[in-house]
Amino acid sequence: MNNNPQLNRDGELQHLLTTEGLPISILLKILDTAESFVGVTERDIKKVPLLRGKSIFNLFFEPSTRTRTTFEIAAKRLSADVVNLDVAASSQSKGETMLDTVNNLSAMHADMFIVRHSQSGAAHLIARHVKPGIHVINAGDGRHAHPTQALLDMFTIRRYKKDFHSLRVAIIGDILHSRVARSQIHALTTLGVPEVRVITPKTLLSNKVERLGVQVYHDMAQGLKDVDVLLMLRLQNERMLGARLPSAEEYFKYYGLTQEKLALASQDAIVLHPGPMNRGVEIDSAVADGKQSVILSQVTFGIAVRMAVMTILMGN
Amino acid sequence: MNNNPQLNRDGELQHLLTTEGLPISILLKILDTAESFVGVTERDIKKVPLLRGKSIFNLFFEPSTRTRTTFEIAAKRLSADVVNLDVAASSQSKGETMLDTVNNLSAMHADMFIVRHSQSGAAHLIARHVKPGIHVINAGDGRHAHPTQALLDMFTIRRYKKDFHSLRVAIIGDILHSRVARSQIHALTTLGVPEVRVITPKTLLSNKVERLGVQVYHDMAQGLKDVDVLLMLRLQNERMLGARLPSAEEYFKYYGLTQEKLALASQDAIVLHPGPMNRGVEIDSAVADGKQSVILSQVTFGIAVRMAVMTILMGN
Amino acid sequence: MNNNPQLNRDGELQHLLTTEGLPISILLKILDTAESFVGVTERDIKKVPLLRGKSIFNLFFEPSTRTRTTFEIAAKRLSADVVNLDVAASSQSKGETMLDTVNNLSAMHADMFIVRHSQSGAAHLIARHVKPGIHVINAGDGRHAHPTQALLDMFTIRRYKKDFHSLRVAIIGDILHSRVARSQIHALTTLGVPEVRVITPKTLLSNKVERLGVQVYHDMAQGLKDVDVLLMLRLQNERMLGARLPSAEEYFKYYGLTQEKLALASQDAIVLHPGPMNRGVEIDSAVADGKQSVILSQVTFGIAVRMAVMTILMGN
Repeated sequence: MNNNPQLNRDGELQHLLTTEGLPISILLKILDTAESFVGVTERDIKKVPLLRGKSIFNLFFEPSTRTRTTFEIAAKRLSADVVNLDVAASSQSKGETMLDTVNNLSAMHADMFIVRHSQSGAAHLIARHVKPGIHVINAGDGRHAHPTQALLDMFTIRRYKKDFHSLRVAIIGDILHSRVARSQIHALTTLGVPEVRVITPKTLLSNKVERLGVQVYHDMAQGLKDVDVLLMLRLQNERMLGARLPSAEEYFKYYGLTQEKLALASQDAIVLHPGPMNRGVEIDSAVADGKQSVILSQVTFGIAVRMAVMTILMGN
Repeated sequence: MNNNPQLNRDGELQHLLTTEGLPISILLKILDTAESFVGVTERDIKKVPLLRGKSIFNLFFEPSTRTRTTFEIAAKRLSADVVNLDVAASSQSKGETMLDTVNNLSAMHADMFIVRHSQSGAAHLIARHVKPGIHVINAGDGRHAHPTQALLDMFTIRRYKKDFHSLRVAIIGDILHSRVARSQIHALTTLGVPEVRVITPKTLLSNKVERLGVQVYHDMAQGLKDVDVLLMLRLQNERMLGARLPSAEEYFKYYGLTQEKLALASQDAIVLHPGPMNRGVEIDSAVADGKQSVILSQVTFGIAVRMAVMTILMGN
Repeated sequence: MNNNPQLNRDGELQHLLTTEGLPISILLKILDTAESFVGVTERDIKKVPLLRGKSIFNLFFEPSTRTRTTFEIAAKRLSADVVNLDVAASSQSKGETMLDTVNNLSAMHADMFIVRHSQSGAAHLIARHVKPGIHVINAGDGRHAHPTQALLDMFTIRRYKKDFHSLRVAIIGDILHSRVARSQIHALTTLGVPEVRVITPKTLLSNKVERLGVQVYHDMAQGLKDVDVLLMLRLQNERMLGARLPSAEEYFKYYGLTQEKLALASQDAIVLHPGPMNRGVEIDSAVADGKQSVILSQVTFGIAVRMAVMTILMGN
């Protein structure tokens, strides 16, 4: 992350790997560009020719139909050619290294790689490796980062709250395993949010996150007080197997967001969730579907934000 | 099915969920529109810009490469953007509900969902749930319905037999498990076919089907007499495991369509099958590849019919 | 292979099934046409409308994301509609025969099938079966042939060595299981390469290959002497399981291409590999990434060669 490999010498965005160290000017450029794409996705013909003839590869070393779909839709609406590669199931099993796979696709004149990988740092490694002119978007790497998710969260917050400078934002849930939380904290800090809290059980806290200047709470009643924005995290139950939590029911009791707990926050607080939701675990259906939820707006804006990132990268 | 959720207040088609209760005017509109698309699929450039910029999602909760492909081809020839989602393998396994998946894709400004699901009623549930302007096509739900299959069968019958009003049609095989049979019976009845028979072993008959006004036969010799159209059903052998049938050989002996049995029908009778065929089980190769078979025409017309349904839905 | 089913009566290419018996005029036409497509893939908008409205099916009975991707990219850059079918996982498991699958897709007005199959002869069988106007490209069938791979190798050799008539070419590795080697030998011979060698352990030699007029070596030092072009083969270790080779390490010691062994060839010899590479088994990383390696150029040219083959076929 030293020297910010995602920027070129002129400070322009070459890759989107992390929100850490991303200058506020670039953050705002992405958010502003995304505004124009919200309009495109609402048109009758949801398509612009900006990336016609470009070859974009969804390079997913860890399967995620949902995330892959958001990038696929964004790329198709920009008129790019998209190829989906579920790499876990193919070359890797034939013993080819990740960089050989990338080299091969690059030699086919790839323009962009959307990379998801279970290992932290995978997208960085690829970005350092590819030739100039090939762009990399990190679509989630291990516990490290998921920058487009954080950017669409920022876009959503700005849409509903206008200004970042007077907000209290709480990130709630499984901080330890969450690449989303890390990316959110960096983006929120850069955008000038004065107070970022994390609310999490002690067993799901990460030392590294504490060092990022957030306030740590283990109690929802205290943590939610006067909060304007609630960023819920998905409980990655497939990663835990009971080691860190007694049960989903127990978790819900203390940290699941119900209407009662939400009432402790500001009256006009908004609730975000990156999906897919575990209803009845980290969030109650009454909240998920309630009037303070902006969860589906996040999805809508997510397409526009990804279109913006792709277009900005291809223009640099 | 009460109030026909597939029609809007003006009686226009919003979703295609079932052929049950579909007015004859809409059935005929689909068949007539499909006629024009048969021409498109025979052109040198098999593409029209009718659905350019539209986002169509193949939402398959039950895998079927074959059916998915027919919709994918139809959508691409209409210039739509198509995204394939094999949902069984993704979000569902992460605990997301079907409606959350649909909500998410809707928030991405989906225009149409093609839904296949092992549970009867799944497409209806989705259709009731989505916002106005989003259209749902049922591509097969449990034992309930498979309307585009029935429509392409009707198209094929009309092409070869011109008029529905003097036909004897027999549906032959595994009625009990067949969503295709149900959809065929409703369409045939609405289109004015005076005599619809089902020929099936007693163990594969469904009470509900009997109530639809069909004549039930358990003997091929009797059932096939003077029949003009034979609608063969696929023997869903993966669903039976010997519980209802002694063996595939035994089934073939009594219900497998051979040239000898076919000779009992009208001399110019035509044979249809929804595919994939179990040759030597429900149908003999001599019949499948014989001159009375119109099975491959069904496939050709199937693309045109699906293009017609998609275009009509998007126009309403 | 009798009567060359890939040519029509006028001697024009209808299918690309094998390089065996392919006239030199057609080989050269493909290579020359590919030259023009190299230009296209280097453009800013990597897309030409030559196959707009055509339906191309990637029909893979044996999974290979890598090979499928090369054809998908080539087809999309020609503006064709591409549908990927992983057939192993679908209709075949429902008991449908391969030719029924092909018949069905043909009835959807397919224009071209790209076929990969674990059985030798599968693409031939399909080519003999389809209607005139439908074209078949063999993307690898059993141990038999992989003609587009051989053609891109020829293209790469010509680019770097200009003339075929004074070359010594060595094919190195697992000859027994390699469809690539067979296709390379036929192409090299037709193009007038005077000396084709194979270098292989005795247990991985095939009698049939010996009869093709190549010189057989079992020792790298002897076999590589004065060689201009080294065609490395992938060690198909998933096929061997120790039966024919003591171990990967042992193989590398005797047949793995290291800088030391490469030094035995001509000073300006080039090294090719069809990928994916087993680094440290058949090839050392120092060679794979070294200055004599043209492995990534092969990949780049492979797209242009596949675009050329598709365009030529569709024009005939």
